[in-house]
Amino acid sequence: MIVILNPNIEDNSKEFKETVDYLQQLPNIEIKMHEVLGSEQKLTEIYLLGDTHKLDQEVIEALDAVDRVVRISQEYRILGRHADEKRASGFTYNGVEFSQESCHVFAGLCAVDTPEHVEIMMKALETHGQICTRMGAYKPRTNPYSFQGHGKACLPWVFELAGKYGIKVIAMEITHENHIEEIDNALESTGQPTGVMLQIGTRNTQNFELLKAIGRQRTYPVLFKRGYGVTLNESLNAAEYLASEGTSNVIFCLRGMKSAAGSPHRNMVDFAQVPIIKRLTRMPVCVDPSHSVGSREKSSDEVLDVVHASAQGIVAGANMVLVDFHPEPPTALVDGPQALLMDELPRFLDDMAACRDFYHKRLEIWRRPGN
Amino acid sequence: MIVILNPNIEDNSKEFKETVDYLQQLPNIEIKMHEVLGSEQKLTEIYLLGDTHKLDQEVIEALDAVDRVVRISQEYRILGRHADEKRASGFTYNGVEFSQESCHVFAGLCAVDTPEHVEIMMKALETHGQICTRMGAYKPRTNPYSFQGHGKACLPWVFELAGKYGIKVIAMEITHENHIEEIDNALESTGQPTGVMLQIGTRNTQNFELLKAIGRQRTYPVLFKRGYGVTLNESLNAAEYLASEGTSNVIFCLRGMKSAAGSPHRNMVDFAQVPIIKRLTRMPVCVDPSHSVGSREKSSDEVLDVVHASAQGIVAGANMVLVDFHPEPPTALVDGPQALLMDELPRFLDDMAACRDFYHKRLEIWRRPGN
Amino acid sequence: MIVILNPNIEDNSKEFKETVDYLQQLPNIEIKMHEVLGSEQKLTEIYLLGDTHKLDQEVIEALDAVDRVVRISQEYRILGRHADEKRASGFTYNGVEFSQESCHVFAGLCAVDTPEHVEIMMKALETHGQICTRMGAYKPRTNPYSFQGHGKACLPWVFELAGKYGIKVIAMEITHENHIEEIDNALESTGQPTGVMLQIGTRNTQNFELLKAIGRQRTYPVLFKRGYGVTLNESLNAAEYLASEGTSNVIFCLRGMKSAAGSPHRNMVDFAQVPIIKRLTRMPVCVDPSHSVGSREKSSDEVLDVVHASAQGIVAGANMVLVDFHPEPPTALVDGPQALLMDELPRFLDDMAACRDFYHKRLEIWRRPGN
Amino acid sequence: MIVILNPNIEDNSKEFKETVDYLQQLPNIEIKMHEVLGSEQKLTEIYLLGDTHKLDQEVIEALDAVDRVVRISQEYRILGRHADEKRASGFTYNGVEFSQESCHVFAGLCAVDTPEHVEIMMKALETHGQICTRMGAYKPRTNPYSFQGHGKACLPWVFELAGKYGIKVIAMEITHENHIEEIDNALESTGQPTGVMLQIGTRNTQNFELLKAIGRQRTYPVLFKRGYGVTLNESLNAAEYLASEGTSNVIFCLRGMKSAAGSPHRNMVDFAQVPIIKRLTRMPVCVDPSHSVGSREKSSDEVLDVVHASAQGIVAGANMVLVDFHPEPPTALVDGPQALLMDELPRFLDDMAACRDFYHKRLEIWRRPGN
Repeated sequence: MIVILNPNIEDNSKEFKETVDYLQQLPNIEIKMHEVLGSEQKLTEIYLLGDTHKLDQEVIEALDAVDRVVRISQEYRILGRHADEKRASGFTYNGVEFSQESCHVFAGLCAVDTPEHVEIMMKALETHGQICTRMGAYKPRTNPYSFQGHGKACLPWVFELAGKYGIKVIAMEITHENHIEEIDNALESTGQPTGVMLQIGTRNTQNFELLKAIGRQRTYPVLFKRGYGVTLNESLNAAEYLASEGTSNVIFCLRGMKSAAGSPHRNMVDFAQVPIIKRLTRMPVCVDPSHSVGSREKSSDEVLDVVHASAQGIVAGANMVLVDFHPEPPTALVDGPQALLMDELPRFLDDMAACRDFYHKRLEIWRRPGN
Repeated sequence: MIVILNPNIEDNSKEFKETVDYLQQLPNIEIKMHEVLGSEQKLTEIYLLGDTHKLDQEVIEALDAVDRVVRISQEYRILGRHADEKRASGFTYNGVEFSQESCHVFAGLCAVDTPEHVEIMMKALETHGQICTRMGAYKPRTNPYSFQGHGKACLPWVFELAGKYGIKVIAMEITHENHIEEIDNALESTGQPTGVMLQIGTRNTQNFELLKAIGRQRTYPVLFKRGYGVTLNESLNAAEYLASEGTSNVIFCLRGMKSAAGSPHRNMVDFAQVPIIKRLTRMPVCVDPSHSVGSREKSSDEVLDVVHASAQGIVAGANMVLVDFHPEPPTALVDGPQALLMDELPRFLDDMAACRDFYHKRLEIWRRPGN
Repeated sequence: MIVILNPNIEDNSKEFKETVDYLQQLPNIEIKMHEVLGSEQKLTEIYLLGDTHKLDQEVIEALDAVDRVVRISQEYRILGRHADEKRASGFTYNGVEFSQESCHVFAGLCAVDTPEHVEIMMKALETHGQICTRMGAYKPRTNPYSFQGHGKACLPWVFELAGKYGIKVIAMEITHENHIEEIDNALESTGQPTGVMLQIGTRNTQNFELLKAIGRQRTYPVLFKRGYGVTLNESLNAAEYLASEGTSNVIFCLRGMKSAAGSPHRNMVDFAQVPIIKRLTRMPVCVDPSHSVGSREKSSDEVLDVVHASAQGIVAGANMVLVDFHPEPPTALVDGPQALLMDELPRFLDDMAACRDFYHKRLEIWRRPGN
Repeated sequence: MIVILNPNIEDNSKEFKETVDYLQQLPNIEIKMHEVLGSEQKLTEIYLLGDTHKLDQEVIEALDAVDRVVRISQEYRILGRHADEKRASGFTYNGVEFSQESCHVFAGLCAVDTPEHVEIMMKALETHGQICTRMGAYKPRTNPYSFQGHGKACLPWVFELAGKYGIKVIAMEITHENHIEEIDNALESTGQPTGVMLQIGTRNTQNFELLKAIGRQRTYPVLFKRGYGVTLNESLNAAEYLASEGTSNVIFCLRGMKSAAGSPHRNMVDFAQVPIIKRLTRMPVCVDPSHSVGSREKSSDEVLDVVHASAQGIVAGANMVLVDFHPEPPTALVDGPQALLMDELPRFLDDMAACRDFYHKRLEIWRRPGN
């Protein structure tokens, strides 16, 4: 059961305290507080866990600080959509809004290699009006003897270059809770020139300890990648680990599934599931066409499969695209063969912007009444 | 090796006969003739099978009737794209053109039930300018005790209604070679009021005897559905069985794959593979969103997942959409829960038309030079 | 609902007629008769289909010819085990008994090639006391340009050689209903020297028209291979097509599933499902280790994976093993790399016999009371 | 390249130092030292990483301390079998030997619940001569609101009970590197009454940071579970992370794969891959029938599927079985429905012992020469 308090209520107000006191004395009920910071208001949600089926919803709704109460199903308690359509959705981070209504492209390097490449990438993004990017510093690799990323050593100069070119949010995978502190330190030492979105990779989708550790911080939003070998339900439950610890600023990312059925693509592209995530949860949905498709093959229409997959995500309502670019793919340390080229960036951005416009046009068609 | 003759060459011309005579005497080489009837010309292709690696391509190209010669890889000899981009693609059937450049919606009933429902459907299609439909008479069912379709009994009145409402092509699954003759007879007895596209279902993708039997007829084009439990390569090889027997008027249909990864959709939607089929083969590509998604669930944007999946197919270049409608889904004998409603038809058609236009707009973006 | 008549009842007896008359006049009920020929008795089962939930079981059990009545679930009506453990199981063909209590090895050639190889194989089988084999005449191949089997041309000499070496049952895949007649003719022309078990391959598991055609004949028992890309439930439903048309002498064969999870084996071995088939149905269960494993790789204990997989099937209660041998694998036309060698035959047979004995020893352990 | 030194060589001997000095000065080569402690000797292996293809094997073999040199392929450098069959395999921990030649049953509680249940279990194990068990203290759960295990709180009394009943090794999953220290502390505070084998669960198979942390400790051996949604090759590469950090005392555990093909079993049982692991690597192989099968369903022969799966593992050469028991399954906090009952323990142990004997009998058959 979720008890949604009146917007912008003060923690030290009388009605707040009375409400919390009442809820805390309920037998066999544990309570968890969540604050949702929107761009215009602060919302406080209190989760009641335990024997909630015995509670009287009307009694709780009558408490002074309470706006309304939502009964929730067992699954995805916090991130789930449940019955109440009016619940706050999305969040603002470093001035950038993320919700099921927004759309952002995160083009960038799969793996940070040299300052020159990072600068070429960021400069091009600025030239084309972009304020988000992806930059991999910590790279989990299937083979222990492969390159594992430059790690914390590269963070300061990556962040400084981001600041120089006006980048507001860098999506960056982390694989250990210590990396949060390393990012904290690097941002602080460089004067907070940019922001970071913590990315959880597909190999760590069910690394619940990492999820709990990330869930305990409130600084950074999270880009959560679906597990490539588990069901969607299992991945959504795993995302809920973040929320259960306190971080509900989570974007859910589709990135393709392991399956012989996907060949010759590297993974089986799963972007038809964008509408499912939006139906079941309040999370914005990201698609990662680069890791799904995994090559630079083209259709007979001369457009890359990676680009077609991106378009498929956006026209069905995706809110974010994570895509690999590289100034010199043959020298890339990780996943070079799937990277788009710098001279494809403006066309890619134009295509995605057109897709987003077209998605809105499609919504207009469907908002017409039936004949 | 494919020997492509000069366009519109006459079978009884001297150069034709000399060329064929020469090819026939080649040692350890079997030859197969294929005629490709386009709307404006007739193309004759001669397939050389066997020890072709020893043949001298230049000698054969010097023959009088020969336009050019294409060396082919082992796989998808006839349907494959191979190196020569200029080879004829697509076909015209009953006045309707199908190719990698065309786009058609086949909306209709998954299973024919009553004349009333069929008439409602066809009338609505005519009202909205459609000349193609789907109508299932023979239904292969997982459980032997389920309804198996009305079979040949319904063909005459279905065809007559099609003629009445100007339908040119009905996609109709067949599961036994005898059904071809039943369709022949019903069309003849009713005065050829419409045309039929023979559909091969996913359970028969590797029913090679059925494929060979259908391949031996030249009257009807074929809509070949991918196998839902085999690789794409295996499905493409199976389609080639049709061509190897003589029918290369084949449309390849993506219809979702069996996988726990697709849940809660009925199957794992595979429309990101549209570009692959167009790259590897010359077949037009169809998508079947109804059987892929298998439900009427909606996204938070109030658009059905089935519709989003359809849009994803078209914006990536699909040439055909096969989609279930029903006037009264609760009374449908097969797959009612996934059918679109009649009052959704105009919006669906508008959406698909807009998607096709948008696909062309996307191609324009990508035909710009890189900066 | 299944009405089981008294054993060995005569079709022209008064109580038989009265019972059938009574059942035929039940409203909204269709009846189907099945005879089960065991080695010692004839059992007649009458299937009541339709609105059976309204029938009074006691009234029917009171009919003179009726032994007892079993209510059945919707699925696998005829082949299923349902509640009644005492129902007849298994069958005898050409003097060989097949049931959930028997165990046979069918070693032989995946594809018939030369009379010399067939004779070497059959002679070796006779030497080692075997009366069953596998011999593929019709070979469905993924690629239409691959060798498709010698077909009916080889049947007479294969059957004669079988007769010469005392083979009672040859498992032989058929892919078209016409092949039944071709086998009929070849057996007749050669004087019925042997028997044939019709094998349905994994690509035809859901070729329902073929299943119905085979189901309509009563001469040959059927070896039904599971579909390698559909669920077990779907494969069991497909087997029921045979029974619904009249052939319940069916052996269900596990042969591995398509899955990246199975690699480096050719398919994902599924022999842990032997107990499932025996629990859900009355069919004997076969395992096909050759097509599951698909190679001659060995463990560090120097035993072939194919052999270990075979043992795994038998010690868990499998009733039949279908296994490829070849006198000269490098010259085999199909699947040579997975074939066992002739000099491995005696050890393979000894291993399988020991596995069967050991399975019985395991049953003894488990028939002890708990401590 | 692996440089294997003379057995029992002293680290401070002259030849040892000279050999290491020589190897360290090789250009573009990194060296890693591994000690393998067998029950009778200590083996030192030095791994040369980098540009090893330029090295002269004979020159290195001529060094005084060197026994021999093995060139290795890229994959599974340390755990892999490679060309040299004579390399040491297996290890001894707390007096118990684990290798590709040993066989142990680890019966126990999936999740520790009460001291009463743990004591019943351990006492029964002692009664039946067992010295190993499984006991889950840290439980990673799909749903964040499910019971997560008693964690470190239960360790002291679990270890004491183990000591009381003569248990030498407890397999126990850990999900965070801190758990190692918690186990250290609990063992120390209770006087080291038993030993622990650290288990890595299927959700953490590719949690490379956890693997590296565990790899850095040398105290405990590791039971590494295959990832249920990745390929075998990927799981083997992940196990190599342990070895690359220093822990090569690793047992590889098959535990079933996520797949619709496995239904109605919880996972698709993968025990036909026992021979593959033994061929590709030197790791002992464990099977986990409880999580693979996931139910207490029985075959028509009245033996549980879980038991048949266990037998299938052992007769194909598995070296360990991890199996859930529970004194009162309905009260178990995790996975009760799949647990075996206490009164099934003696029969289970007898069955497994018989399977192991039978495996050796099978090896004898196959060590006979071919006829």
